[in-house]
Amino acid sequence: MLTGANFIGNTKSKLSENGFHAINAKTGENLKDIFYPAVHEEIEQAVEMASKSFFEFQQISQKDRANFLNAIADEIVNLGDDLLQRASIESALPITRFKSERERTVNQLRMFADLLKDGSWVNASIDTALPNREPIPKPDLRKIYTAVGPVVVFGASNFPLAYSTAGGDTASALAAGCPVIVKSHPAHPGTGEMVAGAILLAAQNTNMPEGVFSNLNDSGYAVGTALVTHPKIKAVGFTGSQSGGRALMDMAAKRPEPIPVYAEMGSINPILLLNDALKNRNKEIAKSYAVSLTAGVGQFCTNPGLMIGIQGEYLDKFIKSLVGNIQEVLPAKMLTSGIALAYSNGLEKVLAQKNVTLEGTSNNDGNDLPGRPLVASVRGESFITNPKLSEEIFGPFSLIVKCVDQSELDDVVEQLGGQLTASVIGEEKEVLDYEPIIRKLANKVGRLIFNGVPTGVEVCPSMNHGGMYPATSDAKFTAVGIDAIYRFVRPISYQNWPNHFLPDELKNENPLQISRRVNGKQTKAEI
Amino acid sequence: MLTGANFIGNTKSKLSENGFHAINAKTGENLKDIFYPAVHEEIEQAVEMASKSFFEFQQISQKDRANFLNAIADEIVNLGDDLLQRASIESALPITRFKSERERTVNQLRMFADLLKDGSWVNASIDTALPNREPIPKPDLRKIYTAVGPVVVFGASNFPLAYSTAGGDTASALAAGCPVIVKSHPAHPGTGEMVAGAILLAAQNTNMPEGVFSNLNDSGYAVGTALVTHPKIKAVGFTGSQSGGRALMDMAAKRPEPIPVYAEMGSINPILLLNDALKNRNKEIAKSYAVSLTAGVGQFCTNPGLMIGIQGEYLDKFIKSLVGNIQEVLPAKMLTSGIALAYSNGLEKVLAQKNVTLEGTSNNDGNDLPGRPLVASVRGESFITNPKLSEEIFGPFSLIVKCVDQSELDDVVEQLGGQLTASVIGEEKEVLDYEPIIRKLANKVGRLIFNGVPTGVEVCPSMNHGGMYPATSDAKFTAVGIDAIYRFVRPISYQNWPNHFLPDELKNENPLQISRRVNGKQTKAEI
Repeated sequence: MLTGANFIGNTKSKLSENGFHAINAKTGENLKDIFYPAVHEEIEQAVEMASKSFFEFQQISQKDRANFLNAIADEIVNLGDDLLQRASIESALPITRFKSERERTVNQLRMFADLLKDGSWVNASIDTALPNREPIPKPDLRKIYTAVGPVVVFGASNFPLAYSTAGGDTASALAAGCPVIVKSHPAHPGTGEMVAGAILLAAQNTNMPEGVFSNLNDSGYAVGTALVTHPKIKAVGFTGSQSGGRALMDMAAKRPEPIPVYAEMGSINPILLLNDALKNRNKEIAKSYAVSLTAGVGQFCTNPGLMIGIQGEYLDKFIKSLVGNIQEVLPAKMLTSGIALAYSNGLEKVLAQKNVTLEGTSNNDGNDLPGRPLVASVRGESFITNPKLSEEIFGPFSLIVKCVDQSELDDVVEQLGGQLTASVIGEEKEVLDYEPIIRKLANKVGRLIFNGVPTGVEVCPSMNHGGMYPATSDAKFTAVGIDAIYRFVRPISYQNWPNHFLPDELKNENPLQISRRVNGKQTKAEI
Repeated sequence: MLTGANFIGNTKSKLSENGFHAINAKTGENLKDIFYPAVHEEIEQAVEMASKSFFEFQQISQKDRANFLNAIADEIVNLGDDLLQRASIESALPITRFKSERERTVNQLRMFADLLKDGSWVNASIDTALPNREPIPKPDLRKIYTAVGPVVVFGASNFPLAYSTAGGDTASALAAGCPVIVKSHPAHPGTGEMVAGAILLAAQNTNMPEGVFSNLNDSGYAVGTALVTHPKIKAVGFTGSQSGGRALMDMAAKRPEPIPVYAEMGSINPILLLNDALKNRNKEIAKSYAVSLTAGVGQFCTNPGLMIGIQGEYLDKFIKSLVGNIQEVLPAKMLTSGIALAYSNGLEKVLAQKNVTLEGTSNNDGNDLPGRPLVASVRGESFITNPKLSEEIFGPFSLIVKCVDQSELDDVVEQLGGQLTASVIGEEKEVLDYEPIIRKLANKVGRLIFNGVPTGVEVCPSMNHGGMYPATSDAKFTAVGIDAIYRFVRPISYQNWPNHFLPDELKNENPLQISRRVNGKQTKAEI
């Protein structure tokens, strides 16, 4: 059933002479399917087609784009259990996980479809003319968000459905009116091909212009580099490592026409553990954090990789409880052998740092299953003076920093880089004593959590999945929720245009019945 | 009265041994005042102070920030005619121009003050918890825009008031809650110092934290480079040349922590001249374009530098009328000797290009007044094959491109880079024939004008003063109007926080009575 081909619009193409095998992540063995990296000619075709289709696609009504997104969701569901099984084989994650991940993926697509049906997200703004104003007349000005052009999306290894081929980046870019070329992730090329097929079927069934979606394979960096540096590509979506994201940012910044890269990169998601909470709810907190730390073999971007507290009885008890919990968690296979190796090396490196103490790990030695939970600790003083301890170790690992006092804890927070999230575990009263530190933390993160775990990113309008660099490339935008669409649009003003020439969203009669800012007031009224 | 010092918060500092003279732009001679470039220590102090003040400033209520902005406006007005005279001497632009530019500057500050008093611009979004949701409870999430940190603003030479020390960038950054360090423009350091003094007086009178504003001098690139590459600076605002803007973009992109540069750079603002309009309104159009082309000695970023039409009788008549109009315009002094030299060189270079014809210039030879209006023409074919002809020549110059037919005109438009504006001069009926070309044009510009001139950027909510690169560094944002504030903020989500710990804008009782998105609906109601 899988072809291993690149999907260039509706054409299946494999011009490369050499392919790469998909890998069974559970066994490490090659699967029979061979995937063919896109060659120069195929990349050019995909971009050319995307660029041509953009002109037509951006003119398609929001309602028709909504139908397209809903059709994608339907076709993904139509793939049935085959999709879940393939994703599980290619990722070593259980089928049950993919049931919920598929639901999330489908819901994201439908969420953007609903946004388009409502139509008001374009932030239409109208200031009508004052032809008799002195000394000069005021023109009629009407502003709206419009699509930027073809977008390249890099699939993420850790969410083969929700952040990959038809994930949040693709859904929001298509919703915005931008054609999408996906650089399929080599860790799940079969899953990618199945989903790409679903998107293309939906595009044909809803009469979208060919070229609105393409899916290109590669096991290396050549295809991604060619896409990001192509003059007709106007934006990039990426979820992955800091080194990978930064490489794309640098490429995009050096182009004759620089373009934005929306990279959601790593984060150690610091947790502030306050004493009264540890005293009162030690076991409950430890249990919830053991779950958060080990969920999905620690392979979430919001994994709690750093816990900071004041040294003493309560922190020690918490560590004991946490270790007790993770000892019972079985080691597991990780997403890829590369990730597993990086995790092993990361653990080895951190445990070799001065004054770092191993607090506990899974009872199973996990020699053949590298994804074993592990907790280590270090004193605040050592953390502050050793920047290596602030680096992310992708996997079920957390470093606990023991500070002598609040002042040292402040210094630890000061030292942290940008993060997707930070959490504060505390009783309401003691939190007040830490207010300046919490505010400092807030200036570094995209989401600040009180008495909760960072994993489990709720998909809703008020979610911000972003944060200061290096957590993301651009703290102004979220990768999750409806506001993710704003990454792929930009404003344009129409001055003094006849009504019939304006986009429907800006016409006097407000045919789409959207909410607009008219002469400074938000209204659905016509003009 | 002028000190020539750097204003580091409330401290006047001149540690440099060597200063530079302000220049009388009308005579080219040195003024007596000497300005002292900021040295390393002064730059460090200003940034350190800005960084410290940020923590306090971002906590100040929107209402108090509004008072600060209004106080700046008041203090600028209090400077009286001295300010207008100084600006005129340093720019060679007439006093009357500065009366209107001061009004615009003051109005911009008050516009942002009004925005803060209303308070709803923060896009507060609240999704309340569903603690009983299955399989997992939904947390309470509340999102709001928050200030990014200290901002560096580069004053622009062509708007010594409206786009400089207290111009749109400074006003929007302060409104957002970001401290500002201005790199004062060496072409008007005296004007800059006077306005900086007004800002600091307003800051003291409204009890703003010291460091919220600093003003640093430099006649070269050292201070700007040090500021843009300083780790504690979080964003940059710039209005100027493409080479200057790109240099800052590259610097910012290479930082360990890349930061956004909002550069509003050059634009040739193409005008599509359609035949029926030229036939019916030849003289009227020519007159309005002669005014637009020569206003402010052509030193506006929206100056109409390129006009494109179909060759023939009507275009020829239009050129004749346009030339007739500009012949009567007297040459004038330009903003600086550097700008004048670049304009002369630009004209010489463009007139030396193959197939470029001089159509007309001011009747005065203008040997000692380099700002002489000039119009040249070239055939479409030559324009398409010679990228040099697409380069901006800053000054009262326009190139007219004569196309053989609509298809060639399409090719000319295809060839254009990003622009701040494009205009279409046409009768409503003929415009329909050009719809695909106009749409193509729309994809390159920030503002599309019908039957009007690009100069005269209306300051209102629906204005977009932006456009695709190289017109700006980031087409997502406008430099003019209330939406300019969004350049200096980023979203943050609060998850499950107690009500009293939330910013006022997110509290249940909605104490500021702002409009918020609550569970998907826009409302001012409390929760």
